[in-house]
Amino acid sequence: MGAMRLHHVGVAVENVEEASRLYQEMFGCELSELREKGGLRAIFAYVGGDEVELLEDHRPDTLIGAFLKSHGEGIHHIGFEVEDIEAALQEAKDRGLAAEGEKSRIGIHGVPIAFLNPEKTRGVLIEICQKK
Amino acid sequence: MGAMRLHHVGVAVENVEEASRLYQEMFGCELSELREKGGLRAIFAYVGGDEVELLEDHRPDTLIGAFLKSHGEGIHHIGFEVEDIEAALQEAKDRGLAAEGEKSRIGIHGVPIAFLNPEKTRGVLIEICQKK
Repeated sequence: MGAMRLHHVGVAVENVEEASRLYQEMFGCELSELREKGGLRAIFAYVGGDEVELLEDHRPDTLIGAFLKSHGEGIHHIGFEVEDIEAALQEAKDRGLAAEGEKSRIGIHGVPIAFLNPEKTRGVLIEICQKK
Repeated sequence: MGAMRLHHVGVAVENVEEASRLYQEMFGCELSELREKGGLRAIFAYVGGDEVELLEDHRPDTLIGAFLKSHGEGIHHIGFEVEDIEAALQEAKDRGLAAEGEKSRIGIHGVPIAFLNPEKTRGVLIEICQKK
């Protein structure tokens, strides 16, 4: 599919405000405003053009909520930017790397995203996100 | 400490050659040569100036070996590049984010690295690495 770049690293945290201060104070990251979508709360920490996506969601039926419950805080996924999310998702399905039922949806950045199947990508949860 | 940028994402894998093919075929990543240091085997997958560090080590007394044994394959750490590793490590210690006994050592990239204490960084294992 030809990823453009590593768009972000997604980190699951219990509280985005507290977690964001660590990245601000320790690494001098600039912080985004708080973003909210459903029960998902996010603050992005920027460093040198890169982004650590701090994600908080306490609903157990969500990706982040389930991760926090079973694993606790930690690195959750990596996000690759792609030129064409629908083509990339279809290619991932053709290669057996994404579930047939996986559909793109609008993520917290406001662009379409989809997830590959971590059982097929060596335990790494990979998000693909449409280039803006 | 003012990180320069997110230098890499470190991923623990059972076999670096097999894992690297996934990143090459799926995302069009260029691959480094195989690097070896002790029992650690590494291939770096490059995408748009970013780097996924694929790391294989089956010695159970190593960071990667212990992770593979207890957790299996998956995202292991993120690496931030810093201007001055010794100053950054001292600052991390002063802030209680690194163990007092932590010392910098030469990593697989050939530059000094050190690790912060993930219990103090919300479950995220953070490597700091000296800018080349």
